[in-house]
This record gives sequence, C-alpha cells and structure tokens, in this order.
Amino acid sequence: MVTTTNSFENNYGLILDEIQHAMELIDPAQVEDLVKMLLAADKVFVIGVGRVMLSLKAFAKRLNHIGIRTFCVGDINEPAITERDILLVGSGSGESVVPLSIARIARRHNATIAHIGSNPNSSLAPLTDVFVRIPVKTKLDLTDEIQSQQIMSSLFEQCLYILGDTAALMIVRLQELDVASLWQYHANLE
Amino acid sequence: MVTTTNSFENNYGLILDEIQHAMELIDPAQVEDLVKMLLAADKVFVIGVGRVMLSLKAFAKRLNHIGIRTFCVGDINEPAITERDILLVGSGSGESVVPLSIARIARRHNATIAHIGSNPNSSLAPLTDVFVRIPVKTKLDLTDEIQSQQIMSSLFEQCLYILGDTAALMIVRLQELDVASLWQYHANLE
Amino acid sequence: MVTTTNSFENNYGLILDEIQHAMELIDPAQVEDLVKMLLAADKVFVIGVGRVMLSLKAFAKRLNHIGIRTFCVGDINEPAITERDILLVGSGSGESVVPLSIARIARRHNATIAHIGSNPNSSLAPLTDVFVRIPVKTKLDLTDEIQSQQIMSSLFEQCLYILGDTAALMIVRLQELDVASLWQYHANLE
Amino acid sequence: MVTTTNSFENNYGLILDEIQHAMELIDPAQVEDLVKMLLAADKVFVIGVGRVMLSLKAFAKRLNHIGIRTFCVGDINEPAITERDILLVGSGSGESVVPLSIARIARRHNATIAHIGSNPNSSLAPLTDVFVRIPVKTKLDLTDEIQSQQIMSSLFEQCLYILGDTAALMIVRLQELDVASLWQYHANLE
Repeated sequence: MVTTTNSFENNYGLILDEIQHAMELIDPAQVEDLVKMLLAADKVFVIGVGRVMLSLKAFAKRLNHIGIRTFCVGDINEPAITERDILLVGSGSGESVVPLSIARIARRHNATIAHIGSNPNSSLAPLTDVFVRIPVKTKLDLTDEIQSQQIMSSLFEQCLYILGDTAALMIVRLQELDVASLWQYHANLE
Repeated sequence: MVTTTNSFENNYGLILDEIQHAMELIDPAQVEDLVKMLLAADKVFVIGVGRVMLSLKAFAKRLNHIGIRTFCVGDINEPAITERDILLVGSGSGESVVPLSIARIARRHNATIAHIGSNPNSSLAPLTDVFVRIPVKTKLDLTDEIQSQQIMSSLFEQCLYILGDTAALMIVRLQELDVASLWQYHANLE
Repeated sequence: MVTTTNSFENNYGLILDEIQHAMELIDPAQVEDLVKMLLAADKVFVIGVGRVMLSLKAFAKRLNHIGIRTFCVGDINEPAITERDILLVGSGSGESVVPLSIARIARRHNATIAHIGSNPNSSLAPLTDVFVRIPVKTKLDLTDEIQSQQIMSSLFEQCLYILGDTAALMIVRLQELDVASLWQYHANLE
Repeated sequence: MVTTTNSFENNYGLILDEIQHAMELIDPAQVEDLVKMLLAADKVFVIGVGRVMLSLKAFAKRLNHIGIRTFCVGDINEPAITERDILLVGSGSGESVVPLSIARIARRHNATIAHIGSNPNSSLAPLTDVFVRIPVKTKLDLTDEIQSQQIMSSLFEQCLYILGDTAALMIVRLQELDVASLWQYHANLE
C-alpha cells in the first residue's frame, strides 16, 4: 500500500526533523521570559483558533496540573481577567481576528499579554509584553521563516504543543515539584 | 408560508404550556434539597449528554456567577472530586452510559450525587443522594409521565434549563446577593 | 429554609411569566423570515458568547436532527462558509466583539446574516439580512425593553432557547417530518 | 533564573528524544492498517479523555481538512454511527471508563473499532479491530514500556499527536492531494 518513501518512518522522521529545526530557532530568552510571567501571574487565560487553540488547551490543562490557574477564553467557569493576570495568545500570523479582539479587551483590563507566533510585526505586536517567536511558515509568507513540507500550519501547531510541554517541564523542575503528588490536581472522574 | 395552526404564537404557546405543566409536577421539596446541597458543597461537577449537558452548562455558568464553584466533567481545568463535592447528573432515563459511569466513579471518591431525571427507578437511583424528578416523557415510556408534542426529549431539556435558572434565582434571593456586584465574577473578555 | 415568597413555585412562576411576556413581544413575521432562511440555506453557522452560545448550540443540535446542516463556529469539523450559507448571530446588544468580528468575515464571504438580539440599532444592524428582536433588557438599557427581575441576561438567554425550539417545531410541522424517523440523525454513542 | 541543566534547550531536547525513541518502537504495519481503515470508512468518530482527546481533536480537524468526515463524540452535529464507520479510541491504559463504554456501544452498532494505546491486553482489546501500540508508560506500569522523565502521560499524548499528523501526511501523499486546494475545506470564519 505505501511506498518506501511514503512509509510511516519517513513521514514521522520528516515531522520530527522539522520540529527539531524549528525549536532550535526559538530564542531561549523569550521562553524564559514567558515562564517568569506565568509564575508571577495570578491567573492565566489562553486564546487561539482551531488547532492552535487545541495546543493551547493541552498547555492549559498541564499548567493547571502544576498549580497555575489557567482558563481558556470561553470556558464555562471563566472568571473576569484583571491586571494581575496574563492573556496568552497563540497565533502564527498575529492577525487572527478573534484573538486580536480578545487581546485588545484584555489590554483594556490592564492584563499582561504574551504572544506565541511566527510574525514579529503583526497587529498584536504593539499590545504584547512578551513575544515568543516560532519562526515557521504559517499563512503569511515571511522571508526568514523555515518552510515545511507539511500541510497548512501543522508545524506551527506542533511546535506550540511541544513548547508548552517544555515550559511546563521547566516549571516542574524549577519549582522542584513532587511529581507523584500532582495527581491530586488531576481530574479523577473519567 | 405558515398556517394559523403552525404560527409562531401557537408553537411557543404549546411549548410554554408544556413547560408550565411539567414544572407544576416537580416536588418543591426535592428542589429545596438540591439547593441546600449546592450551598453546602465545596465544588459542584455537572455531567449529562447532548442537549441535557447544554442545559447543565448554562446552570454551571450561572452557579459560578453567584459564587458556587462549578465544573463540567471534561473541562480543561477540572480538578479532582472529593468527598466534600457534589456530582450533579442530568439524565431523563437515568440510564445514559457515560453519566452512569461517571456517577459510579464519583461515588468511589465519596462525593454526593444529585440526579435530575424523569425515571425514579433507574440504575442511578441506588447511587443518588438527592433526586429531583421532572416527570416528562424521555426515551423511556413510563406510564405516569406527561406526554409532549415536541420532538425527542425537548421538554425535559427545557425544564432542566428553567429548573437551573430557578434554583439560581432562589440562591440569589436566599443569600441576598447584590446582583450588580456579580458582574465581577462574569467573564469580561468577549 | 425558604420563605413562601422565595419558594420554588414563585421563582419558576416569575421566570415563565417573564418569558411569556417577552415572547408575546416578538414579531412573528421576523421569526417566519428566519425559518424561511434556515430552510433555504445550504449550511447554517451559529455564533454567540457564553450562555447565549449555549442556547444557540441547543438550537444547532436540534436543527441537525431535523436535517438542516448546522455548525458552531469553532467546531472541529467546521467547513468553510459560502454565499449559500447563513451565519446566525445571537447577541442581545449586537455589540459583542467576537460575534461582530465573525459576522464581518461572513459578510466578506457573501453569506447571509441573521441576528437574534434585543438592540435593533447595533453595529450588527448594517450587516444583517434578517433581524429577530427579543425586546428584553441585556447589558444595554434601552427604554423600550421589558425589565427582568432575573440576574444578568438570563431572560434573553431563556427566550433565545425557547425561540430556537419554537422555530424547530415550526419546521417539523411545516415539513411534516416523521418524528419517529428523526432518531436516525441523532447521535447514538452516549 | 534557569540553570544550564534546566535550560529550554535541554528540556525540549529531552522531550523530542523521548518522542523519537517511542515513535521508533511503533509497528509501522499497525499504522498502515489504521490508515487503510480511515480511507475505507464512511465516517470516523474519535473518543478519548483529557489531553488524549485534545490530540485526537487535532487529528480529527486534520482528517476533515483532507476529506475524511470525522466527528468527536459529543460534537453538536454528531450523527449516528453505523456499520460503515470507525470509532477511533485513544487510551493509554485501554481502561478509561468513558471510551470503553462508548466502544461497547459502537460495537453494538457494528462499527469498526480502532484503538491507539500502550496496553495491548486491556479491556478494549477484545473489541478492537486495529490496535496501534505506542509503548510508553501511562498510568499502568507495564514492564516492556519505555519510561519517561516527563510528568503524567505527556509522552503518550505527544506521540498520539505526532502519530495523527504522520497518518494525515501519509494520506495526503498517498492520495496525491493538491495541498493548495485543501483550504477550501478549512474553516474561514476566524
């Protein structure tokens, strides 16, 4: 059914190589700034669209597990955002209409804005306190971004997912959390 | 386009009449017990399927607005349930597989179980601490339930929605909550 | 525990009275226009915020059950909107940022826009093909709207829920759908 | 703030190494069987819990983009499952109560069951037509699984995410899909 070149191994190999390459291009200082912000925040809110939002939800779930109160915009129990909170926006282009609208409202409430994206010169830039750049091609076609053989914005979404889990792991180690005890924060009904 | 008998007025009239009739058949003492349980709980978890879950989500959102910490099973920030918490199950038949499974797990964690349903003799009954009966026809066809001219389980879902808002209003008045101040708990990002 | 005036009966009575009063003030011709649009559409998309979105989701679920392909904006399997489709916006004020942004995008794709709201002079008005007014107080305070003793925008959300079920019932009867056969469209996994 | 050993590079390096190692242990023939099943199905349904469900949702979204009709169990527009459909279950242990309950119901409707998990001898095994094993530690502690330095079941969730994107890429190439044309299936409202 599948040719050698379209084998499972070749395809996951391509994906992991692309992720590895993209992660190497992220500025570690930007991630450290993000981690500091997350640790200093009272509450964290995340917003994105489509698969980007799914990567952020995975991050939000993990942050809750390690004791950082995190909500997705739209959650049933979403509280009001305040000046002690962070809005974390995921958007490759930085031009997605909904996240941009939400970021403007968050700014009016004096919340801190973090943005993980690929485009450093987006409409989000003037609103943003911390920007983490994943320099991969999304819908825009900036000259200094790495290309991908995957469809649509898969590479951005994958890197966002891994970046979230990396930040979570950094926090676990930094705070020397007792991993076994974390299950007490984990949902236990399903 | 629409005949007199299929007019907007006739149809909403039919729906409101059915809701009114069903609400009159609910035992007020059961609702009062539910309200007491909600006020005594540390956290509330809700579970249901389909449109029933949507009615419960509307209730959960309102409970959060009036200071009762409420989660939907499956929420991004769902915490562990404990013996100080309530699981509120919505299920007409009391036989829906997922809510039933979740209720069994909640019971193992010694949580209190509340059930809003139409069937008092369901598999949920032995697990349930408080049962509120909305005696309307769902998938089962019990002899003492009121019939409905609406499709599927619409009437149950409508009554569940109104019952939730009624319980919320009772709590607001009972606690003499300052309604204007409640917006501070309301999401402000959208 | 509860006084006579704060009884279950008094509170659901108040809610049903408010709903009845509000429904009577809706222009039936507007609902008939909405029903015609829904029947003529290729696909329907719904968007709203918070409990308003929950009422729309309940409507979307029912529309799917009666053969009208309906998606919530943000759904996992949300397709592209086209000029043969409807965007149905629920927003009392007509000023909610996200629905407004989505409506503008839908308009660029030449989709038809329907709006159910309370404010006829909102930013959505110039974008809207069919407007159904539920003249109840929301966050804005228009002089010709009926007041509510309920908290926040509960009355709008309740009326939206009942309006959706009314429209669905009108469609079932208009098309003389065989109700028993509709279960074949209903999810059967839970 | 961060020590050299807790640097961003070290942590994402650890994660990518663990993913690479786990992917190498997956049997390519099992993935090819899964791909064949997905291509032969009328509709695909996915079910999992927590972050596992998020990985499946990312997969479901991508499958829809490449023309394979996919639903999450619980979706607003979830149709009935039939004997021409697949239920794809994600569960490391194969013992998660909800997915297991759903799989039993799907089997009664004669749907095909695919399972991606780590435990080959789970309660899901007798129900399963195709099993793809990601042999990493989850809550169970099987002797032949690779260990992880990450918290909870992160490694399983990451591998599931990458496995989904790998299968999607295999399908794109196998069917020689015109990637540029795929945007027509992509949501365009946000």
